[in-house]
Amino acid sequence: MRRRLVDQLVTANRILANEGIIRGFGHVSVRDPETETVLISQSRSPAFVTEGDILELTLDGEVLDDDRTTYLENVIHRAIYRARPDVNAVVHHHAESVIPFAITDVEMRPVTHKGMMFYDGVPKFDDYDEERGYLIATEAEGERMAENLGDHRAQLLAGHGANTVGGSLKEAICVTYNFVLNARNQLDGESLGEITFAPESESMVRTTVEEAELSDGVVERLWEYLSRQLPERSK
Amino acid sequence: MRRRLVDQLVTANRILANEGIIRGFGHVSVRDPETETVLISQSRSPAFVTEGDILELTLDGEVLDDDRTTYLENVIHRAIYRARPDVNAVVHHHAESVIPFAITDVEMRPVTHKGMMFYDGVPKFDDYDEERGYLIATEAEGERMAENLGDHRAQLLAGHGANTVGGSLKEAICVTYNFVLNARNQLDGESLGEITFAPESESMVRTTVEEAELSDGVVERLWEYLSRQLPERSK
Amino acid sequence: MRRRLVDQLVTANRILANEGIIRGFGHVSVRDPETETVLISQSRSPAFVTEGDILELTLDGEVLDDDRTTYLENVIHRAIYRARPDVNAVVHHHAESVIPFAITDVEMRPVTHKGMMFYDGVPKFDDYDEERGYLIATEAEGERMAENLGDHRAQLLAGHGANTVGGSLKEAICVTYNFVLNARNQLDGESLGEITFAPESESMVRTTVEEAELSDGVVERLWEYLSRQLPERSK
Amino acid sequence: MRRRLVDQLVTANRILANEGIIRGFGHVSVRDPETETVLISQSRSPAFVTEGDILELTLDGEVLDDDRTTYLENVIHRAIYRARPDVNAVVHHHAESVIPFAITDVEMRPVTHKGMMFYDGVPKFDDYDEERGYLIATEAEGERMAENLGDHRAQLLAGHGANTVGGSLKEAICVTYNFVLNARNQLDGESLGEITFAPESESMVRTTVEEAELSDGVVERLWEYLSRQLPERSK
Repeated sequence: MRRRLVDQLVTANRILANEGIIRGFGHVSVRDPETETVLISQSRSPAFVTEGDILELTLDGEVLDDDRTTYLENVIHRAIYRARPDVNAVVHHHAESVIPFAITDVEMRPVTHKGMMFYDGVPKFDDYDEERGYLIATEAEGERMAENLGDHRAQLLAGHGANTVGGSLKEAICVTYNFVLNARNQLDGESLGEITFAPESESMVRTTVEEAELSDGVVERLWEYLSRQLPERSK
Repeated sequence: MRRRLVDQLVTANRILANEGIIRGFGHVSVRDPETETVLISQSRSPAFVTEGDILELTLDGEVLDDDRTTYLENVIHRAIYRARPDVNAVVHHHAESVIPFAITDVEMRPVTHKGMMFYDGVPKFDDYDEERGYLIATEAEGERMAENLGDHRAQLLAGHGANTVGGSLKEAICVTYNFVLNARNQLDGESLGEITFAPESESMVRTTVEEAELSDGVVERLWEYLSRQLPERSK
Repeated sequence: MRRRLVDQLVTANRILANEGIIRGFGHVSVRDPETETVLISQSRSPAFVTEGDILELTLDGEVLDDDRTTYLENVIHRAIYRARPDVNAVVHHHAESVIPFAITDVEMRPVTHKGMMFYDGVPKFDDYDEERGYLIATEAEGERMAENLGDHRAQLLAGHGANTVGGSLKEAICVTYNFVLNARNQLDGESLGEITFAPESESMVRTTVEEAELSDGVVERLWEYLSRQLPERSK
Repeated sequence: MRRRLVDQLVTANRILANEGIIRGFGHVSVRDPETETVLISQSRSPAFVTEGDILELTLDGEVLDDDRTTYLENVIHRAIYRARPDVNAVVHHHAESVIPFAITDVEMRPVTHKGMMFYDGVPKFDDYDEERGYLIATEAEGERMAENLGDHRAQLLAGHGANTVGGSLKEAICVTYNFVLNARNQLDGESLGEITFAPESESMVRTTVEEAELSDGVVERLWEYLSRQLPERSK
């Protein structure tokens, strides 16, 4: 299982880079449920991550059996895993279409069937430590950030970017992809006219999201699609 | 003829993916007029469709001589073919420039000579089954959707995307391409100032659309252009 | 000289396609001053034009020594060459950034040093023949269109696109490139705030445009830049 | 050291072209602190610059040991090096996202952690010589421009573009990249709603900018990322 998780994590890194969701900066991690540890790359651009870059991290931030260090903001991942047993993968990014919602008070809301997976709202965290700037670097900031996320699938970070989560790595990629897409669609729609947002009825959500847009088949089909867009790796 | 239709359908799938009109999700079909059946891929991303993926579907939704299944929303195609004897190809998509018109009340109207093929209006369907979400999945939804389409060339699906149709597969690609383009142009124009929409006089439409923009020569030239943009397939 | 003009015309066709200024439709021509005839491709997408596609056309529209035909709107080129002895190259296109100005009443005006070559204004033609639609197809339309162009470097065609001209093919490419760029910049600026347009003083125009932005050196440098962006041609 | 500076300057030229920050026109230079001279390409598009194109220029504008000439606007670089002993690299560009701020009165301000390096404001120069147009071509214009820059990291040039500077070439690339990014983010944010700009408290700036976003590690990581995006050079 560890081997499969590492392989998927390398692919997830490359997908996020190839789709322009992470350009140089940002990170993705996966939880290994057998060891209750976090797999994440050492501090480098996701575009270049290979198997040899993956580190194992405890939920308290200790890198196991290795001298290398991971991203400064690794607390983002650990705080979410501690607070959310249902979450097994986390993406932290600053996608271009998402930033407008991170820097204004306009609420991000579902505009299409794909966006409906965010029907219960997208909270925004802005309670940064004064002395640590617009970064999530301390354990206390991480705790407050995870509390703000609550049981949602996505969270905006004021003046910074967003976190998106999933029950698996493939689901987290699907959630992230549709989060970025809903942001783009809402942004374009707001510039055109008054938006009619997607309905929030329970039955609508169940059939649209659970039975379709986040079903195993659709999650798998998106993963296949995004993987096959990847350029050949020149080793 | 069947062989030629299958070949064209594979190319149409790849064109829609290559132009970014369908990214991962969406579908295209063609009617075989000899058998009155529908040719459509099994459920997979149009970017990867090959000859072996094409299934034959009756207008009632039965897959002939095959155990594989096609897209969940295949009723979209069948309902349109049942209602529109003049239509022999259907594209269902969620192109980025089109979504703003699907999520606001701003009417899509022709802004250029290319867009003039939509001179008789673009209806919008929003009468989804409550229990099926923002998807077109039941026969009844399909019937209502086809009735909303009427005899138009394109139709918006509220909070979802659009359908575009043609008398042939090449014409449907031309209609789809110009629909996405008119949406982009109108979107940009609306952000700049008050638009002067294209005239709707009968003579204007006849000379601009029938004798030029949807003439065999132009439809063929666009198909050649889009086909030659396709990357080499690595078999 | 004829050989050099043909070579340049093939390159100009490919540049316009590669820069996305002409996607499938649109055309470029050059005047051979020795024969007072027009060199222009047969009716096909500029992306694919090769030496063998170039036809020779009289100013009255006769194709010399060839059975093939050129673009429906070839009158655009001929009417301009007849009216403007200083013009030796014409580009007709529908670039995405230009369309918003063709479909609204917002005037296109210079916003940067590059755009200053349009300091004397960009007229807009909208006097189409009722029975010919939003196309320039008759000699009479061409005459009116050329009159509207006057002695300017660029002209908008209402609901359609634009024409740009130059004293040479390389200059016309430079004018076209900066026309599309000024449109993009003005469009973005209008969405942000009130624009301070470029000054129109004679000395400013002379030093900025004549001595710099349209000087031989800059025109040549842009041509070299755009030519070297072209993908290898797979013959 | 000279050899390393030349190599880095060639890479910086190609990065700026590859990222679309400089398309054909614009320039980058580096100061050699040992000789107090400026290294800059002869007048050609940054996309094509190779080692053989690099000239050595005195702060007064003399090209050493070479007959070739550099960019018309080389005074931009020399004036900044004369006024700013802390600056060792200068980028002059007209990036698309930056132009709207150069042509309107909307102030560019930090919207994210990355943009926070511009916390002390972005001045705008508009005191051009009447007779030299919208270009910086005379020594006097250069002096006034450098005075307007003051001790900031970036400066807008009205109706023209921008200058960005750094203590090293790699830092200047990082500053430029984030300047263009902040412009894009602010532009998108302004179109969506009212922006909450980044705080300007000293501690925030120190921890966000000095300890993180412009730290050696981040500057180096961005340089590695951008360098590895470069296409293979076909010599």
